[in-house]
Amino acid sequence: MRDAGCGQVEASWSGREVRVIGWVHRRRDLGGLFFVDLRDRTGLLQLSFGPDWSDAAGLELVAELNPEDVVQATGVVAPRPEPNPDMLTGEIEIRVSSLRRVSVSDALPILVYQPPDEELPSEELRLRHRILDLRRPEMQRNLRLRHVATNAVRASLTEQGFVEIETPLLTRQTPEGARDYLVPSRVHRGRFFALPQSPQLYKQLLMCGGFDRYFQIAKCLRDEDLRADRQPEFTQIDVEMAFVEQDDVFRAAEKMFARIWRDGLERDLSVPFRRLPHAEAMERYGTDKPDLRIPWEIRDFTDALTGIGFGIFDGAARAGGRVRGLVLPGGAALSRSRIAHYDKLAQEAGAKGALWLKRTADGWSGPPAKLVGEEVAGMLDAEFGVGEGDLVFFVAGGDAESSPALDRLRRAAARELGAVDESGEAWLWITEFPLYHRDPDTGLPVPAQHAFTMPADPDPERLREDPLSVNAVADDIVYNGIEFASGSIRCHLPEVQRVILEATGLTPEEVEARFGFLLEAFRYGVPPHGGFAVGMDRVVAEMVGCASIRDVIAFPKTAAARGLLERSPSSVTPAELEELGISVTGGTGGDGA
Amino acid sequence: MRDAGCGQVEASWSGREVRVIGWVHRRRDLGGLFFVDLRDRTGLLQLSFGPDWSDAAGLELVAELNPEDVVQATGVVAPRPEPNPDMLTGEIEIRVSSLRRVSVSDALPILVYQPPDEELPSEELRLRHRILDLRRPEMQRNLRLRHVATNAVRASLTEQGFVEIETPLLTRQTPEGARDYLVPSRVHRGRFFALPQSPQLYKQLLMCGGFDRYFQIAKCLRDEDLRADRQPEFTQIDVEMAFVEQDDVFRAAEKMFARIWRDGLERDLSVPFRRLPHAEAMERYGTDKPDLRIPWEIRDFTDALTGIGFGIFDGAARAGGRVRGLVLPGGAALSRSRIAHYDKLAQEAGAKGALWLKRTADGWSGPPAKLVGEEVAGMLDAEFGVGEGDLVFFVAGGDAESSPALDRLRRAAARELGAVDESGEAWLWITEFPLYHRDPDTGLPVPAQHAFTMPADPDPERLREDPLSVNAVADDIVYNGIEFASGSIRCHLPEVQRVILEATGLTPEEVEARFGFLLEAFRYGVPPHGGFAVGMDRVVAEMVGCASIRDVIAFPKTAAARGLLERSPSSVTPAELEELGISVTGGTGGDGA
Repeated sequence: MRDAGCGQVEASWSGREVRVIGWVHRRRDLGGLFFVDLRDRTGLLQLSFGPDWSDAAGLELVAELNPEDVVQATGVVAPRPEPNPDMLTGEIEIRVSSLRRVSVSDALPILVYQPPDEELPSEELRLRHRILDLRRPEMQRNLRLRHVATNAVRASLTEQGFVEIETPLLTRQTPEGARDYLVPSRVHRGRFFALPQSPQLYKQLLMCGGFDRYFQIAKCLRDEDLRADRQPEFTQIDVEMAFVEQDDVFRAAEKMFARIWRDGLERDLSVPFRRLPHAEAMERYGTDKPDLRIPWEIRDFTDALTGIGFGIFDGAARAGGRVRGLVLPGGAALSRSRIAHYDKLAQEAGAKGALWLKRTADGWSGPPAKLVGEEVAGMLDAEFGVGEGDLVFFVAGGDAESSPALDRLRRAAARELGAVDESGEAWLWITEFPLYHRDPDTGLPVPAQHAFTMPADPDPERLREDPLSVNAVADDIVYNGIEFASGSIRCHLPEVQRVILEATGLTPEEVEARFGFLLEAFRYGVPPHGGFAVGMDRVVAEMVGCASIRDVIAFPKTAAARGLLERSPSSVTPAELEELGISVTGGTGGDGA
Repeated sequence: MRDAGCGQVEASWSGREVRVIGWVHRRRDLGGLFFVDLRDRTGLLQLSFGPDWSDAAGLELVAELNPEDVVQATGVVAPRPEPNPDMLTGEIEIRVSSLRRVSVSDALPILVYQPPDEELPSEELRLRHRILDLRRPEMQRNLRLRHVATNAVRASLTEQGFVEIETPLLTRQTPEGARDYLVPSRVHRGRFFALPQSPQLYKQLLMCGGFDRYFQIAKCLRDEDLRADRQPEFTQIDVEMAFVEQDDVFRAAEKMFARIWRDGLERDLSVPFRRLPHAEAMERYGTDKPDLRIPWEIRDFTDALTGIGFGIFDGAARAGGRVRGLVLPGGAALSRSRIAHYDKLAQEAGAKGALWLKRTADGWSGPPAKLVGEEVAGMLDAEFGVGEGDLVFFVAGGDAESSPALDRLRRAAARELGAVDESGEAWLWITEFPLYHRDPDTGLPVPAQHAFTMPADPDPERLREDPLSVNAVADDIVYNGIEFASGSIRCHLPEVQRVILEATGLTPEEVEARFGFLLEAFRYGVPPHGGFAVGMDRVVAEMVGCASIRDVIAFPKTAAARGLLERSPSSVTPAELEELGISVTGGTGGDGA
């Protein structure tokens, strides 16, 4: 149907006849002189129809071409009178001798050729008419880069001796069961498969099965109330290794990311990544996902500022809390209303608020300003580096409230004050995660990462009596403040694994029913093992610089978990439900989307 | 944890100390002299524990090692007194100085080290204890080869300019809807997603979206009454191309298979594959999946054998049928009871039976033998090549009955008589498939391949009035009598596509409801397109020479669609169903599997 792609026609072909096919990207009518930019995935190519063109029917056709019609054109390659340097094929055009319209396009609900400076249509329209949206060069580039990145993952891991193995989609309800998608079985009525939230148990089984180094680029599914930028199905790079220690896992992951960055972005990553223990990250940045492109660190002002007579600080210290703060170089430029805005951010993050202290040529201002005597001022200068033109935000109270608030302030204010080093990338491992967090609702320990992580101290007694005190051999990769990956050494000791699961509130019977098959596998010579998992969608979104992962997925669901293009989910007929052995309780709900 | 894999320790390392870790494959006790074959994914390595070994605790441990314990050993590489040429590391052993048991194995339900000549355990036991089964060298090799084959697919298609794009798992019920797995939505109660039986519609949408060349190694799911060797989830190489004709699709697929064979089996395929029109395949082999390693062809004896006075032949011809037959060189050796067996096979395949005629040194035998005069005998010899020692099977009647019967006889008798050229591989394209078959139950036309194929004659009138007469631009790749792939040029003409769907009995409203989003996409400049799909599991099973695809899948379901390892599907609690907004009708069914 074609001799070459539109973008592949070369200037050196001048004089040759070629046949091309593609979409009418843009048509210009210069008073009987027609030009068509023809588009395919390789680029754009100018077709010209001269006034001397003898093909009357063809000329009539050109005049009525719509944007996005598919046309096939034959003609001679010729140099353009006025080359277009912005176009790959800008030096040439095709002087068309024969033109055929292959497919007609109706009037477009959204444009493919986006005139400069025009805003994109709403995301709803883009998803509804996804096939037109996908034709845009940005979406073409995004998904092609995703392919390159995915190939890089596979190349790196294959080179490192990993074997890609597919694990089942139809599986059994397991740990995070509450958000499993369930699939009724037609053959076994009244029973259900579950779609996997991750291949975690299978990859551990593969280690028990002797595969040593496994990976998979796996689809995972989670039926949750959708937060922004979560998808009910997402793609995970899933990796597991036997006979390893933590450093082996680090090296494998770093090599893989270096290859992705090299192949996808032609950038060389500096490995190994920096490592930061979880407790230190919380202390210095208030978060386990610090963006290290921001140079600011949280400081402890408790000793410096209690006892100067400021009631809020003193009260916090008396209650066992601390006064932590953040020095914003140049922050004195922030207006009262901006400061009030940050105070509100801190409150939203769970703190009582943010107090402030500004140092200008005129001295100190802010609520505690009057109490800043010479000695305190000297300390703020010498020890905390508060100079003229700076501002300090303080959050007083327990760390559980102040850390999230200071993290929030740090990120937001750094953006406002231009303190994010956008030219750099900050990669790091957060290490030594706690094994559990306490669930604020139930009070029960919930696994901080997942329930299959090796405790740094695998003493069953301590796990039973003080589980929240135990650290895990678990780590995250954080990139510019975004969690890219989670890894850990797994617990391969069946009795310890049982205790870990029971500490989350499961009865021994529940542990046996849900995880019996894993614990059984551990009885036949389980190798020590560990691995990591990477959120592929997010990684690619960062690579292309898109805020939304929906821009790197061909057919994403909306934030409300609907497919707008195919109108899913949809209702099904009672006969179909009958055959599945289920019925809908409560409202039936007409046809979807 | 190790300096090298077991199979990686080299003879040239003699005298060096190494640390290895792996499974106790076999332990031999030669009266206080212990040998352990240590196993990991790289191979086997002999550990030796001499009588001079001073480590008393270690010696005690060796004495009590179980098969499949995990041990870590340190020792010096030494040449073996008696090398074992069957073992990769057979020239050396490790003289162990320190031994540590990392994991204990309980008594094994199935063996990993399979003594020679011992039969495998039942498949049920193998699937139940899959992690032990996966440790067997055969399963290790199968899944590793699968990885190589999958990489070859990706490498070839990427080189050919294809982009791998993921399509959704949570989709909308479509064509073959009756066998879709449905997934209740928690967020949108009473509505359902469907799991894809193939990405067919999405890949066509991607062509509309301008991706030009797409592929995906996709998981597909089908909830059907399970025939032998079908899996509820299976893996499909899914390929689609825009702006192509049939030959482009052929070339892309052939290149891909050549690469799989080269990388996976180090064999060079001869491309292009032979092509055989569907009608000719049915005439000459009685099937659209002929195994061309069998040289025999079906012949038409109607003219030769009607009118000689044999009632069955005459009757078949009078009823508009034919007398078709298969000459079996050397078939005269078949006994009466074997012949009776083939007669039964023909009946099972739907024919009235198979008649036979044998030519031996003593003349002709078989039911029509008395009627074979000199003239007929001469014709059988000259025209049909029936020589001494041969046998002919005849099946009289309509082609719909005789074709399946003769296909069955041809395959079975060729195996019995050693007429299959096992040294060769027979690849071919079956071309010019009919667009529809008639459903024997409903009498309605059902798409022979699928409903999105371009008719060879896209005349809506003819499609409405005589759909069964229309051929499709559709093709299969057949390998040694097994369907590997199906391809076609798709119908990109929205009005013709509507007629094709309506001919299957759908109302215009149903077409709109189910396929409206595809037909709508066709309205905005649809490129002509086509592609193919390959059953990856089957291809890999043939590559490794396994009868069952379960041997090339890590965690397959049984023929009854159960997961024996994880015991799926399972029952779920009423509370969970309540949350999904569904209830189970009829029996609830206790805990699964």
